[in-house]
Amino acid sequence: MRRKRLSPEAYKDGIVKQDRAVLGRAITLIESTLPSDRAIADDLIQACMPFTGKSFRLGISGVPGVGKSTFIDSFGSLLVERGIRVAVLAIDPSSQQSKGSILGDKTRMNRLSHHPLAFIRPSPTSGTLGGVASKTRESLLLCEAAGFDVIIVETVGVGQSETAVRDMVDFFLLLMLPNAGDELQGIKKGIMEMADSIAINKSDGNFLPKAREAKATYAQALRLFARKESEWTPKVLLSSALEGKGMDEIWSMLTSYREKLEKNGYWEAQRRFQMRTWFEDSIKQSLLDIFYKEVQAEGKLEEIYEQINTSQISPIQAARSLIETWRNS
Amino acid sequence: MRRKRLSPEAYKDGIVKQDRAVLGRAITLIESTLPSDRAIADDLIQACMPFTGKSFRLGISGVPGVGKSTFIDSFGSLLVERGIRVAVLAIDPSSQQSKGSILGDKTRMNRLSHHPLAFIRPSPTSGTLGGVASKTRESLLLCEAAGFDVIIVETVGVGQSETAVRDMVDFFLLLMLPNAGDELQGIKKGIMEMADSIAINKSDGNFLPKAREAKATYAQALRLFARKESEWTPKVLLSSALEGKGMDEIWSMLTSYREKLEKNGYWEAQRRFQMRTWFEDSIKQSLLDIFYKEVQAEGKLEEIYEQINTSQISPIQAARSLIETWRNS
Repeated sequence: MRRKRLSPEAYKDGIVKQDRAVLGRAITLIESTLPSDRAIADDLIQACMPFTGKSFRLGISGVPGVGKSTFIDSFGSLLVERGIRVAVLAIDPSSQQSKGSILGDKTRMNRLSHHPLAFIRPSPTSGTLGGVASKTRESLLLCEAAGFDVIIVETVGVGQSETAVRDMVDFFLLLMLPNAGDELQGIKKGIMEMADSIAINKSDGNFLPKAREAKATYAQALRLFARKESEWTPKVLLSSALEGKGMDEIWSMLTSYREKLEKNGYWEAQRRFQMRTWFEDSIKQSLLDIFYKEVQAEGKLEEIYEQINTSQISPIQAARSLIETWRNS
Repeated sequence: MRRKRLSPEAYKDGIVKQDRAVLGRAITLIESTLPSDRAIADDLIQACMPFTGKSFRLGISGVPGVGKSTFIDSFGSLLVERGIRVAVLAIDPSSQQSKGSILGDKTRMNRLSHHPLAFIRPSPTSGTLGGVASKTRESLLLCEAAGFDVIIVETVGVGQSETAVRDMVDFFLLLMLPNAGDELQGIKKGIMEMADSIAINKSDGNFLPKAREAKATYAQALRLFARKESEWTPKVLLSSALEGKGMDEIWSMLTSYREKLEKNGYWEAQRRFQMRTWFEDSIKQSLLDIFYKEVQAEGKLEEIYEQINTSQISPIQAARSLIETWRNS
């Protein structure tokens, strides 16, 4: 059964007052595919805009098995114990298939999920990458308006979702396993290139010698990439969720990253660029939605397809003339 | 110095009469970025449409070093010697960087390039993947109108260009090297999945035992993919450009592929689907071009970006309102 919707203002008030129940319901609203919900959601985001922008947006990625959930549990716990409010979102376009994945099961972030300063939200359970990414972006803003200091966006899907996350966070942390050789081949070069730093997770016990080797290997691999526009030099660190190792160091790194980038202007520049990309994505989506809805309603599309199929008209010509007709009607 | 342009009709007449010089100039026209050339090109393609559709469109891909050029030289020579007219196009979004790459140097298809029944066209030397793909698609139609029986589209870039080629050909042949182990990791699973068949190139001399092993490995790997909608079972063959080995077998395979698919309807279905994708791409491109050109002319865009940057408006709301303003003006 669907719960009653609030007004955009009521959602906004609850969120700004840091009411977690309202925040949770607001994210549910955002994830809804009902057009009526969409209209409320758009207004809600608009209302929350003045309260956004202050958090540290942290993307965390890595192949399945690298230990993302336990890492986030451990790292997030360090933060909340210091009074830093942490929200965790996941982007998982494939979660329809992989039921019960990472965040679906909150118990995998056992410590963090019970802390009053933490908010963990499982990934929306369906949709294309574009759709899921857009909803995660919106949820992130709501969490920000709700006063969370650090918002972690975890990728669950492998491959394209990293790019989607990179486009919405300030810092992209890539988790790797100590067996560097195997991994260098499993992870795409492009994903390593996006990383602002690499943490070699599970760097504990017997894995430690391997982890140190891996650190050297990755440090060398990172040096091959072009210098980042942010002027930030990616680092490679060792971490262990099991032993809580490296968490402090990672938080220090993030703090100095923010300081450096706020000083050189890239912090703001990157966010402006991300908002612009989001705007352009929205334009594309909305324009196409409107266009196809209207030409379909007029039954123009089938006729055009028929002409294309029988080689009466080239696809380019067909597109040009259909757009012209649409604009004149 | 730019040569004088012909009228769309004059280009079309030359092409249909199989005048290779006119075909070459027409492709140059298509590759031009001048708006005035674009208008002629659109009309030219429209005029050529009734003469298209009869060729076998063959995509050939493989990692650098697999021997694509020598393979095409050898395979194409077999065809032209039988009186089959062959055109070779390349899709290479990155050719700005990799000057002198594959088709830029026609001498790498030494036999084929001198044959009167062959037409080899280097890749356009600049542009994004989308842009290059669209021009290659158009060039393909012109070659078809010029009566070529087999049109080979070679990918030069690695990664995304395979998808672009798959979207415009009837059959996608993936070339591999005999060292299967190394290669299976280098080539993405998604690209193997797109393949209608695999040819293990350089299957000669000392490589032969390795090549036979590779054949078994790939055959097994292919069996793991879902059955193709075309009901075609991908094959693995051995080939050697050096010895001319396997070329005959590949041509027989392509012939029986066409027969089978023409019978079960997938040949036509796939082409219809490709034209539809092309149409949708054109719609997206044209709509966005028109939109941005007009809102930019009215100076609306800078204002909106300013509002987004200062968090006065959400990107979604901004998109919605800008589209509304645009539609009402």
